[in-house]
Amino acid sequence: MALAVFRAARRAPSIARSSSSLCNRFLRFSAVRYAADVTRDPMTGELTSLPDIEPARLKFIKNTDPRPPPPSSSLVFGQVFTDHMLTIPWSANSGWDAPKIQPYGPLQLDPSCTVFHYAQTLFEGMKAYRDKNGKVTMFRPDMNMKRMNVSAQRLALPTFNGDALLELIKELIRVDKHWIPQEPGYSLYIRPTLIGTQRAIGVGPPNEALLFVICSPVGPYYPQGFKPIALYGTTEYIRAAPGGTGGYKLGANYAPGVVPQKIAAKKGYAQNLWLHGPEHYLTEVGTMNLFVVFKKDNGYIELVTAPLDGMILPGVTRDSVLALAREHISGKSKLTDLPDNLVVSERPVTMGEVKAAADKGQLVELFGTGTAAIISPVDRIGYLGGDVHIPTDPDGMGPVSRVLWKELVGRQLGTIPSEWSVTVCES
Amino acid sequence: MALAVFRAARRAPSIARSSSSLCNRFLRFSAVRYAADVTRDPMTGELTSLPDIEPARLKFIKNTDPRPPPPSSSLVFGQVFTDHMLTIPWSANSGWDAPKIQPYGPLQLDPSCTVFHYAQTLFEGMKAYRDKNGKVTMFRPDMNMKRMNVSAQRLALPTFNGDALLELIKELIRVDKHWIPQEPGYSLYIRPTLIGTQRAIGVGPPNEALLFVICSPVGPYYPQGFKPIALYGTTEYIRAAPGGTGGYKLGANYAPGVVPQKIAAKKGYAQNLWLHGPEHYLTEVGTMNLFVVFKKDNGYIELVTAPLDGMILPGVTRDSVLALAREHISGKSKLTDLPDNLVVSERPVTMGEVKAAADKGQLVELFGTGTAAIISPVDRIGYLGGDVHIPTDPDGMGPVSRVLWKELVGRQLGTIPSEWSVTVCES
Repeated sequence: MALAVFRAARRAPSIARSSSSLCNRFLRFSAVRYAADVTRDPMTGELTSLPDIEPARLKFIKNTDPRPPPPSSSLVFGQVFTDHMLTIPWSANSGWDAPKIQPYGPLQLDPSCTVFHYAQTLFEGMKAYRDKNGKVTMFRPDMNMKRMNVSAQRLALPTFNGDALLELIKELIRVDKHWIPQEPGYSLYIRPTLIGTQRAIGVGPPNEALLFVICSPVGPYYPQGFKPIALYGTTEYIRAAPGGTGGYKLGANYAPGVVPQKIAAKKGYAQNLWLHGPEHYLTEVGTMNLFVVFKKDNGYIELVTAPLDGMILPGVTRDSVLALAREHISGKSKLTDLPDNLVVSERPVTMGEVKAAADKGQLVELFGTGTAAIISPVDRIGYLGGDVHIPTDPDGMGPVSRVLWKELVGRQLGTIPSEWSVTVCES
Repeated sequence: MALAVFRAARRAPSIARSSSSLCNRFLRFSAVRYAADVTRDPMTGELTSLPDIEPARLKFIKNTDPRPPPPSSSLVFGQVFTDHMLTIPWSANSGWDAPKIQPYGPLQLDPSCTVFHYAQTLFEGMKAYRDKNGKVTMFRPDMNMKRMNVSAQRLALPTFNGDALLELIKELIRVDKHWIPQEPGYSLYIRPTLIGTQRAIGVGPPNEALLFVICSPVGPYYPQGFKPIALYGTTEYIRAAPGGTGGYKLGANYAPGVVPQKIAAKKGYAQNLWLHGPEHYLTEVGTMNLFVVFKKDNGYIELVTAPLDGMILPGVTRDSVLALAREHISGKSKLTDLPDNLVVSERPVTMGEVKAAADKGQLVELFGTGTAAIISPVDRIGYLGGDVHIPTDPDGMGPVSRVLWKELVGRQLGTIPSEWSVTVCES
């Protein structure tokens, strides 16, 4: 096994050569950096801990039948995938196996695999952006790697070195970087997924798993400018509950939401507003986090979102919105046009409070946040047979969301420099 | 397309011949019976509704490399599978495709398939029993077909004719009937599964799905006689909540239970007892339904289980236990040794009530019910730092569960005649 690592180290440069048109040679260095993750007995050379994900062991199998990326204008979210995918198998006996970037194609899985029976699956959603000069960036990818590990732990699936996986994801993006649309608002959506693949139908921690990453070029959520959506206040179905898995990005949180979404659509609403408990606490919007802006009696503007109490997904956009608002308040990074008398709260909000504020003219705006839509303004909530109306400006947005959206998009594309933007390659 | 059905009708007898060693020729008849399910325009012959599952269209691809079934004594639950599997693809455009019994083997699925990302999966657990004369039976399979359709509806996956699927499952059992162990307590576990296979990572009703059925020979849950288990009263994690999916047999209900189970095991308990709400209502045991038996102040014996309030899986064994007890009480079918002063309740029970009854010597017994274990007696519940002890007899069971178990097993194996036992083949 010591030999295997040595071979991996020697193999690395040749892989780097095979992708020499790419803008980075991380593999040459990572062989050194990551081989150290494997603990060995200094006398016998035997493994004393199982291998983590090791970029130095990457195998690259080039797609010899690549397709031309479709015109950006024809893109529908998540329906077209790039020429390659990343796969990393894991087993309880031997840890993480060598990562492989290979042609995009079907997975071969035994019908007894636990993912098919017990929903042993979790995922992340990330984006890569490409500017006119060919520079490719990602937005706070470390947050996704951390959250993915937290999700894995919650399902008794294997955890991993998030930096190592991120290096491999960057390499996958570099391999398929001509698939990243460069039109403003377009990006490459990246979907890391981890599934249990034990070939046995008992319910337990799987002894085999597969991590894979696929990429899909996507267009802007609102190609014709912002169009506020109407939400249906759902009280008969839940997305999450205390002690459940709503705070983790698990597949299990999504399938049960499809029927409630269909019901909302039938009633003429775009998405569910998940209301919790007899108090009808606002938790999330469809598959997005939720923000409300109130004008308080004392004149302050309050930006509120539900606290991370275990029912709320710790969204990267949610965290970024909170951070931007707090940096503005603290003076660390002032945002022009954002009110000076802003306060930020992570606290429970009931529909009663929203309705009362709307009636009194103190509801400033309400919006969803997520990786796909970034910010999604809301103009109406169907609630207990009536509609609560929410102000929006002619551009579809509100005074707080507009400023935050501009800053967020600027930081994502790198036009506003920030440490949140991570360079994948320069040209 | 009218021609296709005609071809199917002609093909059927030849398939029946190819499996002529089997004990039934349903295909010959089903061609007539099920072709009628497809609605056609009487003038043009064109489809006016999409095809349902049609046994007459069955394609049989024989496994040319069959394996010998392993010795029954070596069986571990759900680890070995028979030579064949049943697959039936569905698409939103063309409905249910021709069913196929084919060699057991890997599924080829696009990595974007919705089952991998959003847990679009549901399943059933059934058993086939084989007696010394080769007679093969199933136990109340219509209940599983109904529940599977209810689950499909909950996930916006396609529903189907349950009788038609059951005919096909019986055919699969007949094809692999030499895999059914004939030792007492052994059986063939049957796992119908339905997954969303749309190749797109949007969250919505899938436009493609796959129904498959695999079979695994299994041994008795308690090969050395009943061994009561200890439960850990779980209050920090939930299995289900009002408005959630606990009442449906979805994959999404299972993966989140693995970590709580590991925690219970670490504390020295075999399974979780899922306690709901601040009242600590007893809901389910691990992946089983739960029954408690109280001795009431008025001398009556009360058999209690949680009501089907949306959080409780409507188990087939649960329903059978309730039906047996009620038939005993009504006099329709008296069970020797079961108390005459029995009452049956579907009502909420709190841990407070269980603990108080245990303290007063009025807790008779507590057991789980499920397809795998049938009846699983409990002798201890870890609760708020202490242990509640539950009486068990020297044979591991209690006075109510023992009688019900005997009757259930008799009806399952057909030694006690009942309409619950469905014959798959006679020799």
